[in-house]
Amino acid sequence: MKAVRVTGYHEKLQMDDVPVPEVTGPHDVVVRIGGAGVCRTDLHILEGQWAEKSGVALPYTIGHENAGWVHAVGSAVTNVAEGDKVILHPLATCGLCRACRAGDDVHCENSAFPGIDSDGGYAEYLKTSARSCVKIDDSLEPAGVAALADAGLTAYHAAAKAAARLRAGDRCVIIGAGGLGHIGIQVLDAISPAELIVVDRNADAVKLALSIGADSGIVADGSQVDQVLEATGGKGAEVVIDFVGEGGSTAQGLAMTRRAGDYLVVGYGENVDVPTIDLISAEINILGNLVGSYNDLVELMALAARQKVVLHTQRYALDDFQSAIDDLDGGRVRGRAILVP
Amino acid sequence: MKAVRVTGYHEKLQMDDVPVPEVTGPHDVVVRIGGAGVCRTDLHILEGQWAEKSGVALPYTIGHENAGWVHAVGSAVTNVAEGDKVILHPLATCGLCRACRAGDDVHCENSAFPGIDSDGGYAEYLKTSARSCVKIDDSLEPAGVAALADAGLTAYHAAAKAAARLRAGDRCVIIGAGGLGHIGIQVLDAISPAELIVVDRNADAVKLALSIGADSGIVADGSQVDQVLEATGGKGAEVVIDFVGEGGSTAQGLAMTRRAGDYLVVGYGENVDVPTIDLISAEINILGNLVGSYNDLVELMALAARQKVVLHTQRYALDDFQSAIDDLDGGRVRGRAILVP
Amino acid sequence: MKAVRVTGYHEKLQMDDVPVPEVTGPHDVVVRIGGAGVCRTDLHILEGQWAEKSGVALPYTIGHENAGWVHAVGSAVTNVAEGDKVILHPLATCGLCRACRAGDDVHCENSAFPGIDSDGGYAEYLKTSARSCVKIDDSLEPAGVAALADAGLTAYHAAAKAAARLRAGDRCVIIGAGGLGHIGIQVLDAISPAELIVVDRNADAVKLALSIGADSGIVADGSQVDQVLEATGGKGAEVVIDFVGEGGSTAQGLAMTRRAGDYLVVGYGENVDVPTIDLISAEINILGNLVGSYNDLVELMALAARQKVVLHTQRYALDDFQSAIDDLDGGRVRGRAILVP
Amino acid sequence: MKAVRVTGYHEKLQMDDVPVPEVTGPHDVVVRIGGAGVCRTDLHILEGQWAEKSGVALPYTIGHENAGWVHAVGSAVTNVAEGDKVILHPLATCGLCRACRAGDDVHCENSAFPGIDSDGGYAEYLKTSARSCVKIDDSLEPAGVAALADAGLTAYHAAAKAAARLRAGDRCVIIGAGGLGHIGIQVLDAISPAELIVVDRNADAVKLALSIGADSGIVADGSQVDQVLEATGGKGAEVVIDFVGEGGSTAQGLAMTRRAGDYLVVGYGENVDVPTIDLISAEINILGNLVGSYNDLVELMALAARQKVVLHTQRYALDDFQSAIDDLDGGRVRGRAILVP
Repeated sequence: MKAVRVTGYHEKLQMDDVPVPEVTGPHDVVVRIGGAGVCRTDLHILEGQWAEKSGVALPYTIGHENAGWVHAVGSAVTNVAEGDKVILHPLATCGLCRACRAGDDVHCENSAFPGIDSDGGYAEYLKTSARSCVKIDDSLEPAGVAALADAGLTAYHAAAKAAARLRAGDRCVIIGAGGLGHIGIQVLDAISPAELIVVDRNADAVKLALSIGADSGIVADGSQVDQVLEATGGKGAEVVIDFVGEGGSTAQGLAMTRRAGDYLVVGYGENVDVPTIDLISAEINILGNLVGSYNDLVELMALAARQKVVLHTQRYALDDFQSAIDDLDGGRVRGRAILVP
Repeated sequence: MKAVRVTGYHEKLQMDDVPVPEVTGPHDVVVRIGGAGVCRTDLHILEGQWAEKSGVALPYTIGHENAGWVHAVGSAVTNVAEGDKVILHPLATCGLCRACRAGDDVHCENSAFPGIDSDGGYAEYLKTSARSCVKIDDSLEPAGVAALADAGLTAYHAAAKAAARLRAGDRCVIIGAGGLGHIGIQVLDAISPAELIVVDRNADAVKLALSIGADSGIVADGSQVDQVLEATGGKGAEVVIDFVGEGGSTAQGLAMTRRAGDYLVVGYGENVDVPTIDLISAEINILGNLVGSYNDLVELMALAARQKVVLHTQRYALDDFQSAIDDLDGGRVRGRAILVP
Repeated sequence: MKAVRVTGYHEKLQMDDVPVPEVTGPHDVVVRIGGAGVCRTDLHILEGQWAEKSGVALPYTIGHENAGWVHAVGSAVTNVAEGDKVILHPLATCGLCRACRAGDDVHCENSAFPGIDSDGGYAEYLKTSARSCVKIDDSLEPAGVAALADAGLTAYHAAAKAAARLRAGDRCVIIGAGGLGHIGIQVLDAISPAELIVVDRNADAVKLALSIGADSGIVADGSQVDQVLEATGGKGAEVVIDFVGEGGSTAQGLAMTRRAGDYLVVGYGENVDVPTIDLISAEINILGNLVGSYNDLVELMALAARQKVVLHTQRYALDDFQSAIDDLDGGRVRGRAILVP
Repeated sequence: MKAVRVTGYHEKLQMDDVPVPEVTGPHDVVVRIGGAGVCRTDLHILEGQWAEKSGVALPYTIGHENAGWVHAVGSAVTNVAEGDKVILHPLATCGLCRACRAGDDVHCENSAFPGIDSDGGYAEYLKTSARSCVKIDDSLEPAGVAALADAGLTAYHAAAKAAARLRAGDRCVIIGAGGLGHIGIQVLDAISPAELIVVDRNADAVKLALSIGADSGIVADGSQVDQVLEATGGKGAEVVIDFVGEGGSTAQGLAMTRRAGDYLVVGYGENVDVPTIDLISAEINILGNLVGSYNDLVELMALAARQKVVLHTQRYALDDFQSAIDDLDGGRVRGRAILVP
């Protein structure tokens, strides 16, 4: 089969012919890829940024946002069957550690990460575990949802955590209405009654946010903290979700957070640097956020099936992988680039 | 001022001229009534059903679903000011007992219930406590929301409790799409991503439910349990809210509840009668529901301000109180009857 | 190896020689049994009460409360290794259904129940899944904890659910200080600051309860509801755990429950039969309780390792299985009977 | 009556004769002081550090950790009566704002702080609100518990927040076993089954900690992070409570926190300065902590009544206030200094 592989860092990806993976263990699932998201992380992998961390042996097949159809299953697989349309959770988790047993599988102590530390989805077929497979609704197609597998799932996870404490009349500030933020806004609009205030440097992003569920938008021109305080009676928002995490957004986000409120960090880059007295006197929480769990992905797919979360995609044939990479690198992708074998 | 009073049980209500109540304590609030809901409970009061329970001395002014404008406030009142538009929580709570201190003021150990055990809102003015007053949005008018103070608040409370555990992809069955159910559906649609399945004996009620947020409707013809099971893969719904509580709805509701699911009782009449082995083997919870807390009412008003919860009202001048009572008794009220002084 | 098997209902168990089970799948674990609890359910199995429900094919090896040493593991087993001391969760769950993925594995949609629907632990060796194996502390021995695998785990689960809402100053009534109740009391004493009030018909059981953590005891002589109300200022307890579930305990338990309180059903037999108006006006919850999850068992073993939960056992050689059965049936077992191969 | 007052900053406190306060409003309570804690904050007040923040007009009576007997009550007071022994929550809250209505009264938008911004408890009598009064058990005496009103309540609040997520087998690190930490350890030992690991620079403090409930102790000599990691299998603790908040404890505390764990800041001084990528990749939470709520104080008093939390006190007659201040300033107080009128 065709597979796009990393053969060396600081080199171009290469299309190779490799054997179709086969089921060997009882929980194995081989998936025929219907769509593989092209993510900025893939560019970083090529630059060698993940080489040491992942320890992956080259060559290997890249691609960690995958969806498709089940091609073959091991003997113990009960959650999906041949022919099922599926999206794949980015982690293949062990199911045995305490975190997995608590439903918190993202913190699995023995997980693999296909596309990062093992063969991924820029290929015709991918072998994974039944524990990664989430069936999707008949109305969805793999290429349309593949990019929700990682970036979308991260946004969902943070939004769902926020929604768990937001009540009608509460305010939630979303800093950053880009790739993740724009999913987060749709999710919050679907699952929470809170008033959504979006902050972004880009006026077009703010405009888009307003069209997909935000209640008000603020173009970050330096006065965004003051504007949020003004919009919240000087008190700040019950929850602030920061999809940016750099360029001063963390201090601003904390300054927008109400007493006893939550500031959720999703984007990263800079340090959170805050006096302990400020955290204590206002009793504010700073909550870290990683990608969502398997059940989070099930829930996100339920929203997608009802058109509550929609992703704009730009599709490329698998053979055109280099164009997709180049377009992403060159800022020419609107929405998410998807490879379709 | 004019006040419609109970002067004897099994007698007609009587319009009297009484003094306008005055502020005497620091937390007192006198409200000029803008709308008072006419509730079936008012009919029961006249029949003497509440005489012993409330211990109220006759004559007294009836009416427990009230909204209006703040007319005067005591010296310690900080949450509302003269001229504010307000809806009144049905209970005037003490603020000092452990339940009040926990935010669970509905279980206050020292509450009054204006319209039931003290003077209510079928009048031009009503005296209550600052603890009952919830400011409402400029866009709302007292006569439009008054009936949300009690019935609507009960529905909100149950719906919010259900929503706290419902995730995208979950199913919630609502039994009864009448007065309370029809608020509950709107609330759930606004605050939860769950799929809403409405069950009612009346096909018109089901149709209405579908127009205000229900995802599917079942006309209860004896096959409703089977239909819910079929719609849920044989497993039942994660949550069932029973706004009926009689005529077999409790056994049906429990039979519609999934393993580890919640069955919420709101309507009442019959007994819940269920083998302990059934509760245990499926690990089902039966949750009682009373009216909502003060903060629940704040949240419900936030939804109302955004037109997420809308009530159909049929208005009567205060002088026409007898027509309102007669129309309610005769089944001629569409939505809720409201007295407007 | 030796295995005690059911060869026919209404017949005696029979000691057979059968092959030692072998690892065939990657998640298989073969355990050398160190102790197998003899449970009243085993008597019911012999009476045929489970025949239809379990659908098990005869002959099969009985015994569902098992602990021992890991003898062999499949290739994908990461949570235990050969030689580890383990206790076995009663269910071998799939790990793939939504309940398993949420940590709520007791509600697994595809579980096996060794000793009930497949070969159990009245034997020298037992084959199970890695998902059932919980490592125990060096200080514990299999025969000492085996009986915590099912009965103890049920008590732990209910106690932990209760503890999640109990705060210092709250009261928890425990109805029934027998096998389960006596574990529940120890657990509550270890994990909750609530005041524990024990109710039992048997004065000796009450005395025992007081020695292992109960703060006060009531011998159920007909006045137990009044006594609980008196001890709680007429209000009832925040939580009531009913380990009996028959003989009137459900109505009594509900009558002992405070407004907004929880009544937990663990024991079973009779019906819960309660007017909906009572559930609603006091806003009481009735919570069903099944056996605990895998992680519950991990936590219970953490308590056992610190001697917070201690079980009295009466041990029998595996060859003496008939004596154990007879003693249990004849009421001659103090604590729990354990077969030791 | 006698009252010790601040008459000028950077001057000594002065004993004055002032009128006994009187009940004027319906929620007023006048308390005869039985004990008033002498706190380091009192020294800071004299140094003028609070002058601007509190805006208090001089002269005024100092003392914010108070307990005593109810001397007189206003007409609407239902929670205490003349003669009751009480401890006073440090804040006199409004009971009307959204925070108060949610039970989160510490975030009251209109609170007074007797001893800081109004007359406090270094006096024979103090006037406060019914909302501050918590009845204490007959077995307790005001002078013995007064110091739990503020410092103890802060420790309780953090410990209770930690306990809400700690399960048997989990580990909780307590950094700092001084005034607050030593209450926190007693509280955690009473309400949580977690293993308590105490870290302090002072070997004697560690020794004391072990005698009041800690399971293990680490003298902070620079290797404390490594020691905690070693004690937790390299993973860190589920919860870390930092009662220090300076001298590097925040970075150390975060380094001791397990993936998906909580780091609670209680002590303050330095900045929390952490890369966002670290918060995200380990999904760690940083939780601010202020003083506890009214209900927290009720619960703490329930623990005190059962001798689960015991405070060492060093008592002074009110007339000897200067000795108490001098001893505190000179480091000669073991436990807490208490003025007894």
